[in-house]
Amino acid sequence: LSFASKKLLTLVSEAALENRLIRDVLACGAKGYTVSGARGTGPRNQRNGDLEGGNIRIEVVADSKTIDQIIDLVQREYFPHYALSLWISEVSVLRDERY
Amino acid sequence: LSFASKKLLTLVSEAALENRLIRDVLACGAKGYTVSGARGTGPRNQRNGDLEGGNIRIEVVADSKTIDQIIDLVQREYFPHYALSLWISEVSVLRDERY
Amino acid sequence: LSFASKKLLTLVSEAALENRLIRDVLACGAKGYTVSGARGTGPRNQRNGDLEGGNIRIEVVADSKTIDQIIDLVQREYFPHYALSLWISEVSVLRDERY
Repeated sequence: LSFASKKLLTLVSEAALENRLIRDVLACGAKGYTVSGARGTGPRNQRNGDLEGGNIRIEVVADSKTIDQIIDLVQREYFPHYALSLWISEVSVLRDERY
Repeated sequence: LSFASKKLLTLVSEAALENRLIRDVLACGAKGYTVSGARGTGPRNQRNGDLEGGNIRIEVVADSKTIDQIIDLVQREYFPHYALSLWISEVSVLRDERY
Repeated sequence: LSFASKKLLTLVSEAALENRLIRDVLACGAKGYTVSGARGTGPRNQRNGDLEGGNIRIEVVADSKTIDQIIDLVQREYFPHYALSLWISEVSVLRDERY
């Protein structure tokens, strides 16, 4: 088994941002993503995700450079306007070329 | 991009525990959480989550001290009575003050 | 708090593979799993998960040997035929004997 090191980025936002976030994630060079439904809350927020279609959780596995580009864009274009959480972790994958 | 190191705690339990777990997670000092629906099984359990509203998966990103307090509470008050799985991993975040 | 090191394997596939994947995961020695619904896309795929019941996301926490056996099997029996993504990360657990 031959593993390659990648980053896993998890983004949690209101569901209304799904299409825009996915477009931006792919435009930054990610080759795929996984979306699941969620609900929850963050600092100073009311409980999100109970209203207006809930929250989403987007997972993106990619190389550092791609993840950095996504985070940079999110920081500039989403953080000032939307409640959005993100965290990054180290993961291993097979088939390096697919991520 | 300036990252801070945090812990990601994932808790999987029966859905009936959601409100109590979230209350306890916030009481331990977490500033937010993400909940999603799930189903599954663990050792000696029947397949959970197919009955009675399924399972939930709660994710909490916080500092080590907060996560340790949550785990300590879960160990004392939940493990003896409920089927509950948890795992912890290392994550990086932006905006340190939000976690 | 006494932690043990384990691996977390996340598998994302079309929902139609759920029963077969779970059977194989347990046959490789995993003691539990968590399944949640998802949708998404990977390289060269159309947007999966919008048709035919969506995608699933299976999480398995186990020791390295068990995870390697699952990955080996997935590589041989699933990768040639199905769109399936996987990634592995390091996690800590309590109650070592349950994983």
